[in-house]
Amino acid sequence: MKASQFLISTLKEAPADAEVVSHQLMTRAGMIKKLGAGIYTYMPMGLRVINKVAAIVREEMNRAGAIELTMPVIQPAELWQETGRFEKMGPELLRIQDRHERDFVVQPTSEEVVTDIARQEFKSYKQLPRNLYQIQTKFRDERRPRFGLMRGREFIMKDAYSFDRDPASAQISYQAMAQAYRAAFDRFGLRYRAVAADSGAIGGDLSEEFQVIAATGEDAIIYCPTSDYAANIEKAEALAPKGPRPAASKPLTKTPTPGKSTCADVAELLNVPLQTTVKSLVLATDELNDKGEVAKSQIWLLLLRGDHDMNEVKVGKLPGFEQGFRFATEAEIVAHFGCKPGYLGPLNLKQPVRVVADREVSVLADWICGANEVDFHLTGVNWGRDLPEPALVADLRNVVEGDLSPDGKGVLAIERGIEIGHIFYLGTKYSKAMNATFLDENGKPQFFEMGCYGIGITRLPAAAIEQNHDAKGIIWPDAIAPFTVVVCPINPDRSPEVKTAAEKLYAELLAAGVDVILDDRGERPGAMFADWELIGVPHRVTIGDRTLKEGKVEYQHRRDAEATPLAVGDAAAFVLGKLKR
Amino acid sequence: MKASQFLISTLKEAPADAEVVSHQLMTRAGMIKKLGAGIYTYMPMGLRVINKVAAIVREEMNRAGAIELTMPVIQPAELWQETGRFEKMGPELLRIQDRHERDFVVQPTSEEVVTDIARQEFKSYKQLPRNLYQIQTKFRDERRPRFGLMRGREFIMKDAYSFDRDPASAQISYQAMAQAYRAAFDRFGLRYRAVAADSGAIGGDLSEEFQVIAATGEDAIIYCPTSDYAANIEKAEALAPKGPRPAASKPLTKTPTPGKSTCADVAELLNVPLQTTVKSLVLATDELNDKGEVAKSQIWLLLLRGDHDMNEVKVGKLPGFEQGFRFATEAEIVAHFGCKPGYLGPLNLKQPVRVVADREVSVLADWICGANEVDFHLTGVNWGRDLPEPALVADLRNVVEGDLSPDGKGVLAIERGIEIGHIFYLGTKYSKAMNATFLDENGKPQFFEMGCYGIGITRLPAAAIEQNHDAKGIIWPDAIAPFTVVVCPINPDRSPEVKTAAEKLYAELLAAGVDVILDDRGERPGAMFADWELIGVPHRVTIGDRTLKEGKVEYQHRRDAEATPLAVGDAAAFVLGKLKR
Repeated sequence: MKASQFLISTLKEAPADAEVVSHQLMTRAGMIKKLGAGIYTYMPMGLRVINKVAAIVREEMNRAGAIELTMPVIQPAELWQETGRFEKMGPELLRIQDRHERDFVVQPTSEEVVTDIARQEFKSYKQLPRNLYQIQTKFRDERRPRFGLMRGREFIMKDAYSFDRDPASAQISYQAMAQAYRAAFDRFGLRYRAVAADSGAIGGDLSEEFQVIAATGEDAIIYCPTSDYAANIEKAEALAPKGPRPAASKPLTKTPTPGKSTCADVAELLNVPLQTTVKSLVLATDELNDKGEVAKSQIWLLLLRGDHDMNEVKVGKLPGFEQGFRFATEAEIVAHFGCKPGYLGPLNLKQPVRVVADREVSVLADWICGANEVDFHLTGVNWGRDLPEPALVADLRNVVEGDLSPDGKGVLAIERGIEIGHIFYLGTKYSKAMNATFLDENGKPQFFEMGCYGIGITRLPAAAIEQNHDAKGIIWPDAIAPFTVVVCPINPDRSPEVKTAAEKLYAELLAAGVDVILDDRGERPGAMFADWELIGVPHRVTIGDRTLKEGKVEYQHRRDAEATPLAVGDAAAFVLGKLKR
Repeated sequence: MKASQFLISTLKEAPADAEVVSHQLMTRAGMIKKLGAGIYTYMPMGLRVINKVAAIVREEMNRAGAIELTMPVIQPAELWQETGRFEKMGPELLRIQDRHERDFVVQPTSEEVVTDIARQEFKSYKQLPRNLYQIQTKFRDERRPRFGLMRGREFIMKDAYSFDRDPASAQISYQAMAQAYRAAFDRFGLRYRAVAADSGAIGGDLSEEFQVIAATGEDAIIYCPTSDYAANIEKAEALAPKGPRPAASKPLTKTPTPGKSTCADVAELLNVPLQTTVKSLVLATDELNDKGEVAKSQIWLLLLRGDHDMNEVKVGKLPGFEQGFRFATEAEIVAHFGCKPGYLGPLNLKQPVRVVADREVSVLADWICGANEVDFHLTGVNWGRDLPEPALVADLRNVVEGDLSPDGKGVLAIERGIEIGHIFYLGTKYSKAMNATFLDENGKPQFFEMGCYGIGITRLPAAAIEQNHDAKGIIWPDAIAPFTVVVCPINPDRSPEVKTAAEKLYAELLAAGVDVILDDRGERPGAMFADWELIGVPHRVTIGDRTLKEGKVEYQHRRDAEATPLAVGDAAAFVLGKLKR
């Protein structure tokens, strides 16, 4: 490609609404152009990256035996009503009526449509397993779309769906996808981690996220540097503390803590470690009657150490929390504790509540909690002596750096990541809802065991940039760069030799199958280099009159601080050598 | 590809709603699956065809210097309001509101968005010409979607848009697209015609349709077998008749024609050629006041020969018809003619009307028309003697087979076609509406001269089938076949030699870069052959125990009545030879 034949459009300044670096750089490099909130045109430079990502994903999906199709973007509501998602999904689901006032959705995913295809196509166990995928435009009507392609409303996703005859076979299909994902992610040239994720209400352990590591990522990735353990924060288990609870050594004392309603404030006032304080979280679970009204509410008191955060996914799995939970209202709190929030604790309750202690809280001695009286806390609290042993002890908290690794092979570290892929064993959730069955060897209908597998095709370039950039711009990995090599002649209009040498090198690299661009725009050197550094093409060869007279050209990788002089005749071979590595 | 790893799903019967053969065969061959009215999943077999079509189009667009981008499917209403299309377009434009009740459309084309990009990106004449294109999902909410992919609601289109500094440059851009379209259509392997089309209100002659020739096509293509003249029916000019009007030879006579209200009935009753009768079409044009209400209506009488049909596009270009026209109401007709339709004519009017005669009517003598009295016609009517010469003579009619070709090089013939591509010089229609300008050499803002260029990517396979099928199924041209070659081993499970020979041939063709499928499903020969004949793979090699014992396999093109025996060792070379042609 010659630059004069392409659309290169760089900006000095990022738009005011671009908060993250990938959004800033993709806009400045002319890769995306905003059309509306969360809606972007993929400009020619950006589309090249997206197409390379899609091509790698497609190859690895095909290699893994998945079969490509394309389901409609606009889907009739009927199938979405079969699973209940038409009603259950919030306003993220973009709903439309056509000219005949029939309901449709703009697909955010395609579980319903693909399950409908499976129940029509896969009549017999002999046709299984099958994996169908598409690379397709999707829409999620995010309330506050931002961060460019990181959280757009319209986006491109690869979504695959596997159909198996039984859980054992579904496991194999799932593992084949896990392997295909690793193969694709290895090819992208990004640092990433596959982390265990919570599989929600389905149960089982078969869910993994593929996280591109970046300091700016919104997800916390938990991993063990001395083993291969990795999980997301929702999933990572906080092990039970080793060793028994120390013996009580202090008396129970009501201590004035005027105006100190947080654990941190209390610890500071009393000059004790935050780890000796306990926070009281009051939750409620509701029982509904046949009409869907609340018939009865149960109040729960969750106790966590002052330095720990509650993990909602773990709490959601407590016995009794199957139908969901909520934070208690202030009225409920006052009724049970006789006190407003900020000074709550498990002693001197007005009405009984169910107490659940985090594992770490259950082994504390001489701890501190609210006195259920404004401006007072209790110190020297001890289980068994001052209050009954907790009715339930559970893992309620997010792990923190330094916690023991669940695999027993070290301690946990935390880094930030951007979720780009998610693979998920679905079981029969959708096949049951849609009565999607095949006939087994005995001619008996069985529900499909399903899995679903997504990769955010348009999100990946943004994540790659969050991981790979510097003050000058983007630094693409070779595999997904818009162009792999740029040839930059300096003032070619003034030097026919420079022009000829640049065109010769361009032709040689093109003939060798390299995705090379020749900058024949006639820009001045400073502007030309700034453009390519911003756009982030990884390999650059500069051809100038001064060095060419000595038979030299200059090679510079986007990460190199200095250029490397090369004999002009060796340049093509040198670049090809760089690309092979 | 091995068939066992692919999704092959054929049906004996077409669905009841499939009216046209392409819809029937694509459904039966498992290429598409209906999800809703006019909304189809492109199943794996169909997607392969669509992808091949798209790849050819993309290559030819790139070769012509067009640059690919991807504009959003869901587009904010604001830009569509700038051109007025948000209001003007009918219910075909699918409108949506997002969660914040902002208006959006699902794009049917992208003139507004691409013009918005151009006015931001192309600031200077130095950046022109440019051509931007996308291959993208589109939606038109057809009132009565039908015919499968021929007239779907959701479909894939290639849409390109050119931006030029002046009309002369726009002509060059237009011609480059015309050439790229011919190159792509030549590669598809279909019989087609590029026909001149009417360019509507824009004026000028720069509009061509690319029509795939098929007896079932809904468009009439006019062409001259002895020259390269070709146009669609709207566009093809009916030349003025040669020679002068004959002299009047019969008296004007009022003739009873009870119950005969059509020219055909009258001609039959009076035993005269239909060509001597004249039909009276009463039209109205409305003048609107500032409030958009009808202030005044003008009544027009159009006279056409009884054997000719009115051409609405030509009539729309009459002076006075710039703001559109309509058929007159019965009340208007009675007021002006004193008679209900069926017996109308230009003589004995109650109120004056403007008379426009078709060129052929203007040279008639002794003609027949309605007497403006029920059950009576006039015969022996003559211009000048019985009524004034027509105020206006124009080409009002569709051409018919045998008319003189407008290029003077023969007579016209008519065949049927399916419109797959349309290229169009837009002028400044959109750039003016959106105030999209660039700066010329003098620093003065100028409106972009635009063109737009579409190819129906998902419609093309349907058109290909309408042109190429037989009683057994589809017959694909090589370039867009889902697979180019199928290798069919007969009962491979019973003969290891057959299995080995089939796998060897498959591997050889694969290694030679052929898009080959090996049918390893273990189907019985009859079912296997029926599948591939239905699916329409053009080249088949059959390997059976009986012939293999004699060292032979059998080649058969999908159009061949008989198979050709080949030495097993020559099979790959033979097939490759067939593909090269």
